[in-house]
Amino acid sequence: MSTGLHTVVVGTGLLGASLAAAGRRAGVFSHVTGVGRSPENLATALERDLVDAVSTDLASAVAEAELVVLATPVNTAVAQLAEVAKAAPAGAIITDVGSVKGPLCRRAAELGLGPARFVGAHPMAGSEATGAAAADPALFEGATVVVIDEASSDASAASGSSDAVPGDAVPGDAVAAERPSARARLDPVWSAVGARIVVMTAAEHDRAVAAASHVPHLLAFALAVAAAERSDAGRVGEVVASGFRDMTRLALGDARMWTDIALANRSAIGEGLAELRSALAGIEAAVEGGDEAALLEWIDRAGRGRRELVGR
Amino acid sequence: MSTGLHTVVVGTGLLGASLAAAGRRAGVFSHVTGVGRSPENLATALERDLVDAVSTDLASAVAEAELVVLATPVNTAVAQLAEVAKAAPAGAIITDVGSVKGPLCRRAAELGLGPARFVGAHPMAGSEATGAAAADPALFEGATVVVIDEASSDASAASGSSDAVPGDAVPGDAVAAERPSARARLDPVWSAVGARIVVMTAAEHDRAVAAASHVPHLLAFALAVAAAERSDAGRVGEVVASGFRDMTRLALGDARMWTDIALANRSAIGEGLAELRSALAGIEAAVEGGDEAALLEWIDRAGRGRRELVGR
Repeated sequence: MSTGLHTVVVGTGLLGASLAAAGRRAGVFSHVTGVGRSPENLATALERDLVDAVSTDLASAVAEAELVVLATPVNTAVAQLAEVAKAAPAGAIITDVGSVKGPLCRRAAELGLGPARFVGAHPMAGSEATGAAAADPALFEGATVVVIDEASSDASAASGSSDAVPGDAVPGDAVAAERPSARARLDPVWSAVGARIVVMTAAEHDRAVAAASHVPHLLAFALAVAAAERSDAGRVGEVVASGFRDMTRLALGDARMWTDIALANRSAIGEGLAELRSALAGIEAAVEGGDEAALLEWIDRAGRGRRELVGR
Repeated sequence: MSTGLHTVVVGTGLLGASLAAAGRRAGVFSHVTGVGRSPENLATALERDLVDAVSTDLASAVAEAELVVLATPVNTAVAQLAEVAKAAPAGAIITDVGSVKGPLCRRAAELGLGPARFVGAHPMAGSEATGAAAADPALFEGATVVVIDEASSDASAASGSSDAVPGDAVPGDAVAAERPSARARLDPVWSAVGARIVVMTAAEHDRAVAAASHVPHLLAFALAVAAAERSDAGRVGEVVASGFRDMTRLALGDARMWTDIALANRSAIGEGLAELRSALAGIEAAVEGGDEAALLEWIDRAGRGRRELVGR
C-alpha cells in the first residue's frame, strides 16, 4: 500500500471521480484510469486533474489494474462485473460504490468471485450534483462507508462496529486462506480518504438504506407530485417555505439513477413503505378523530426517533 | 402611520416577539406591550429589548391599544378573541399570525368583527426554534405573508396578486364604508418589516398550507417514527445522510403547536393526505411491478413539480 494501487475507476461520475481524486491525493492510488462512455465527462475529469488517464474501453483499461472500482449505476455495474472479472488480472481486487448491494454481491458469487477478489462498498456521500464537474476529493471526509462482509455477525453490524478482523474468511474459503482478503486491502483506502467504515451483510445494508434513503426519496417524489398537480398549485407555490423545500429536495435526484436503485432494492423498499404507511395511517387517524393525546404522542415519538437516528 | 401604532402582541414566542422587534425597528409601532403567561419568557423579551413593556394581564394591556396581534397558538387565539374584542378600544384593529385561518376568521365573524376591526394574517416565517430567545427582527425580511380577505376573488388569489383595493368591503358592510379597513392599516406594517403580501380567502389559505406545510409535517413525523422504531434502527442510524436529515427536520417541531395546527385544519389536511397517498401508491406500484418507464415518468413529474413550486 505504501506505493499505492494501480486503480481503474469505471464511471467517472460524482462518486467515481471524487474517489479517484481523493485516493490520488491520499497516496493510496499510484495511478488512476477513468473509464466512461461520455468523452465530454472524461475530458472534464482529465482537465480537473481528477485522474491520470481516461479510456472508453473497459477491457483494455483494466488489464493491468490492481484495483477496479465500479462506480456506474447499480444495474450497469451488475452487467459489467463479468467483463471486469475476465479482463482484470487474477490478483486484482474489485469493488463498487453502489447504493444497493444485494444484486452485485449475488452476481459476484455467481461468477465465483470470493472475498479475496471482490468486496462491495457503499459510501454515504453525494448530492443531487452529477458528473466529474461536481467531483470533490474531500467528498468522503467524515462520511460513513458501508463495507459488505457476509461473515460479519448480526451483533457486530447492529452495534455499528465490527469485531471481524479484515481478512476473516467464510469457513472453507481456500483462496482467502492463502492471500489477504479484498477487504483487508480496501479498508485502508477508505480510511485514507477520510471515511468511517461500518461493516454489514448485503441484506442488512439493503434494508437499512431502504429506510434511511430509498423510502425518503419515494416520499419526496410523491409529495412533489401531489402538491404540484393540485388545482390550487399556484396558491401552494405562494406559501411554500423551508419545510417544503427540505421535504422535496430529494425529488431533484437523477431519474435514471433513482429508477435503477428503486428497482434493484424493491423488496426492502416494499417493507419500508409498509412501515411508513402504517405510521402515517396512525397519525391520520389521530388527526381525523381529533385525538389530541394520541397526536401529541405521535409527534413526541417522531422527535425522539429523529434525535436517536440523526443525533440532534 | 407616521407616528406608529400603539401595539400589543399577545404571545411573545418566536413570531410575536420577532414582529414586535421588527415593527419597532421599522417605526410602524410606537410602543409595544408583550403579553404572555411565562414570566421567564417575558423577561427575555424585555432584556433583549424586543418590546417596551410586558404584562400577564391581557385585558388591561389591550385597553389603550391601536393594534392587537394575537401570536398565541391557533386554539388559544380563538379562545382569546372575545376578550380582546371586548377589552380593546372600539377603534383598535385586531390581527393574528396563526398557521390556520378558518377557525379564527369564523370566530371573528361570530363576534361581529367586520373587516374594519379584524384581519387574519399568516407570515410564512419561523423555524423549530421557539420563544423570545430565538426572536429576530429580520425574520420577516423577504418572507411571504398571507393576508386574509374574503372579498379577494379566486382569480386574483390564484395568480398570487390581488386586484382588491385594501379597504374594499364586502357589500353591505356599513362600518367599513365609514373608516379604513383593518387591512388598509395593517398591510403597511407587513411591508415595513420586509414581508411580501399575498391575499387569499381563509379557505384558500388553509388548503394551500395543508399541502405546503401541514402534510409535509405529518409525513416527517411518520417517516421518523417508522425508521426509528424498526428492529434494525441501529443500522439505519449508521447510514442516515443528508437526505434523511432533511426529510425529518420537521419532526423536531413543537408537539403542542403542531397538534393544535393539525386539529384546526383537519379537513384540508385530509384532502392533502389523500392526494399524497394516491401519488405514493402509484409510485409503489411502479416499483413493485418493475415498471421502469412508469417510475422514470413519476420521478420526472416530481422534479418538474418541485421546480415549479420552489423555483429551482
